[in-house]
Amino acid sequence: MRKVAILGVGQTTIAEQWDKSLKEIGGEAGFAALQDAGVEQVDSLFVANMLSPLVGNQNQLGALLSDWMGLRSREAVKFEAACASGGAAFRAGLMAVASGEIDVALVVGVEKMTDKAGHEVTAALATAADADYEVEEGVSFVGINALVMRRYMHEFGWQHRDFAPFSINSHANAVHNPFARLRHEITPADFDSATMVSSPINLMDASPTGDGAAAVVLVPLEKVTSAGARPAILVAGSASSGDTIAVHSRRDPLFLMAASESARRAYRMAQVEPADIDVFELHDAFTIMAALSLEACGFADRGQGVRLALDGQIGPRGRIPIATRGGLKARGHPVGATGVYQIVEIVQQLRGECGATQVEGARVGMAQNIGGSGATVVTHILTSA
Amino acid sequence: MRKVAILGVGQTTIAEQWDKSLKEIGGEAGFAALQDAGVEQVDSLFVANMLSPLVGNQNQLGALLSDWMGLRSREAVKFEAACASGGAAFRAGLMAVASGEIDVALVVGVEKMTDKAGHEVTAALATAADADYEVEEGVSFVGINALVMRRYMHEFGWQHRDFAPFSINSHANAVHNPFARLRHEITPADFDSATMVSSPINLMDASPTGDGAAAVVLVPLEKVTSAGARPAILVAGSASSGDTIAVHSRRDPLFLMAASESARRAYRMAQVEPADIDVFELHDAFTIMAALSLEACGFADRGQGVRLALDGQIGPRGRIPIATRGGLKARGHPVGATGVYQIVEIVQQLRGECGATQVEGARVGMAQNIGGSGATVVTHILTSA
Repeated sequence: MRKVAILGVGQTTIAEQWDKSLKEIGGEAGFAALQDAGVEQVDSLFVANMLSPLVGNQNQLGALLSDWMGLRSREAVKFEAACASGGAAFRAGLMAVASGEIDVALVVGVEKMTDKAGHEVTAALATAADADYEVEEGVSFVGINALVMRRYMHEFGWQHRDFAPFSINSHANAVHNPFARLRHEITPADFDSATMVSSPINLMDASPTGDGAAAVVLVPLEKVTSAGARPAILVAGSASSGDTIAVHSRRDPLFLMAASESARRAYRMAQVEPADIDVFELHDAFTIMAALSLEACGFADRGQGVRLALDGQIGPRGRIPIATRGGLKARGHPVGATGVYQIVEIVQQLRGECGATQVEGARVGMAQNIGGSGATVVTHILTSA
Repeated sequence: MRKVAILGVGQTTIAEQWDKSLKEIGGEAGFAALQDAGVEQVDSLFVANMLSPLVGNQNQLGALLSDWMGLRSREAVKFEAACASGGAAFRAGLMAVASGEIDVALVVGVEKMTDKAGHEVTAALATAADADYEVEEGVSFVGINALVMRRYMHEFGWQHRDFAPFSINSHANAVHNPFARLRHEITPADFDSATMVSSPINLMDASPTGDGAAAVVLVPLEKVTSAGARPAILVAGSASSGDTIAVHSRRDPLFLMAASESARRAYRMAQVEPADIDVFELHDAFTIMAALSLEACGFADRGQGVRLALDGQIGPRGRIPIATRGGLKARGHPVGATGVYQIVEIVQQLRGECGATQVEGARVGMAQNIGGSGATVVTHILTSA
C-alpha cells in the first residue's frame, strides 16, 4: 500500500445553524479543506453522517454534497457507523488512496441536529443502540451510558465529582478554539450542580449536540513531498474494530474491547507505543467514555482513567493531553462529523497551530472515534512526516 | 493493486418477511455466502442499507450484523447511496482487498421494507431525492421517474405499451429464480391494464419493494487459484460516478451521464467493449430506467433502448440479455440490497447455474446499480478468470 498524507483540513463552527442547510454546512468545511490543500478537484468524496434520514429527510448525501460542491461526476458515498461515522469515512478514504485506485480523496463529516425537537433527536440517537434488545426496552442512548457509569463507580469506588476534571479540561481548552460550541470555562461547582439527565450522568458529563462539518483532503505521501508545500502529516496507523452492539451482551461492560483492539492494531501499524503519543483526541461523548477510552488504549489501568484526570495529567501540558480543542464535551458533538473533527484537530496540533492549548513539540497524535457504546471503534495515528 | 475474486455468494428470498428481523435476514445471506466460499471468518464486513433508520429505527448496521453473525471484533461499516448502496459497499470491499489492507471481505446488502405502511415507505424512498428542491415541492420518487418517462415518450415518439417487453422479460425470467419476489409471467394485456401509479408509470412499470439480503465474499485472486476450488470469478472492472441529485438540474434529463461515465471507466479497466458483455444486470427500478441504462452503456442509441426490447434482444438468447433472474421488476427491489443481488446473479451466470435463463457460454457479465434518478451509479464487470 502507498503511504497517505493529509494535505488539507477544514471545519465549521459548531452551533445552532438554522440559517444553513446540510449541504451548505458540509460544503463550507469541504471548500475550506480544498483551499487549505490547494487543490480544486478530487477523485472521490467520502461523506460521514448519521442522522440526516431521520432529522433531515435526506439520504444519498454523497451525491447531494458532490452536486452542491460542483464535484459532479465524481464518485461519492456516505458512511454510517453511528458516532463513529467520521472515523469510518476517513479510513475508507485512506484505503482508497492507499490502494492506488484514486489520488485525491475528500472526506467530509457533516451533521445537522438542531432543526428538530430534543426528544426527536434523542429518539434518532437511540438508533445507535440495538432496536430489538435495547431501545424496545425503553432505554435511551444516554440511559445506556448512565448504566455503565453507575456500574463503574460501584466497581472502582469513584464518586460522581471525581469525573469533573474531564469536563473542566474540555471546557478550558474550548475557550481557545474559535470553532467550539461551548467556549466558556466551568468550575467544580458547576459540574456538581448541573441538571441531571440520566443519573449519574448530568448535563456536565454529556456532550452537546450541534450543527457542523469537518473535512480532510487525503493524497499519496509522495505527492506532498514533491509539491514541497507545508509539512506533510502522515497517516501512520489506522484500524477499526467492533464489539457487540448491545452493552448487556458483553462479558465485561466496563472494558471497551473494540477500543483496545483497534488501538493495539493502530500502534503496531504506526510502530509506536502509548508512551509515544503526544496528544490524544478521544471520544468524550460522556465523561465515563473518556475514562474507558484512556484505559482501553493503555494510558491507565482498569478503573484508573479517572485517576489520570484527577492527577492533572490530561491537560495540554500533562502526560497525555486529551480534548485539546474542547473535545466532544465543549467543542461539541455533531455525531456523524465528530470523527473528522478529531482528525482535523490532531493535524492542527502537529502543525503547531493550537495557540494556548498547543502541546509543545507534538509529533505523534492519536484520534479515537467511538460508535454506539463501543460497538464500532476507529483509531488513527498521525505523525508529522 | 491486487486482483480480487469473488469466492462465494448468498441470498435470501425476497418477500414480506414479517417473521424475521433485519439481522436475521442479513445473517441468512451472509452465512450462505460464507458457506459457499468455504470460509468461517472475515477481516471486514461491509453492509449496504438505505432505509433502516427510517423503517426499522436502527442505525449502525455494521456492528449490528457483525455481532449477530459472531464476527465480533471485526471492522464493520454501513454504506448508503440510496438504491446504489449495494454497489457502493461492494466497491468498498473490493478496494479494501485490492489495497492489501485486508484479505477477506464480506459484503452484505440488506433491506427490510414491508414492516411499515406503503405511504411511510414511499416517504422514506423519497429521501433519495433532494429534500430541499424536489421533495419539498411534493414530488415522490416515482413521480420524478414518471416525469422523465413522459418526456422520453414525447421526445422519441414511444407509446406506453412499447415499454411492455422490459417487464414481460423480467417476469418470464423470474419464474425460474427461486429467490424472486414475483414468480409469474405477465402478458401485454396485463401490462396495459395495470393500476396507474404516477402517469405514465403503472404497476407493471415499477419494481416491487420487499425484504431481502444478498452477500458476497471477496478475496485476493491468488488465494482462489492456490486453493483450487470452483472456477474463480474475477472483478475485472469497477467504477462509480455521480450526477446532480435533482433531475431538473441536469442539462439533459434523458441521458444518464453517471451511468455512461461509470460504464466507460469500467469497460476501460476490464479492457472490454459493450459488444463483449454477455449478460447485463441493469437497474430496472422502472421500465424507463432500463431503457436509459441500455443507452448510457452503449447498447443502444439515444432514445432507442426501447427498440432493443421490442426487437426481442433483451432475453436470455438475445443480443444483450438483461434481468436474467427477474431484475428489479420481478426478482424484487429491496433497495439497499439490490446492488449486491445483481453481483450474485452475474456470478451465477458466469458459473452456469441459471438453468432455463442461463446465457449460453457467458464469460463476461456486467452489473449496474443506480441510486436516485441516476445521481449515484456504480458499475462492475465480472469475468470467469
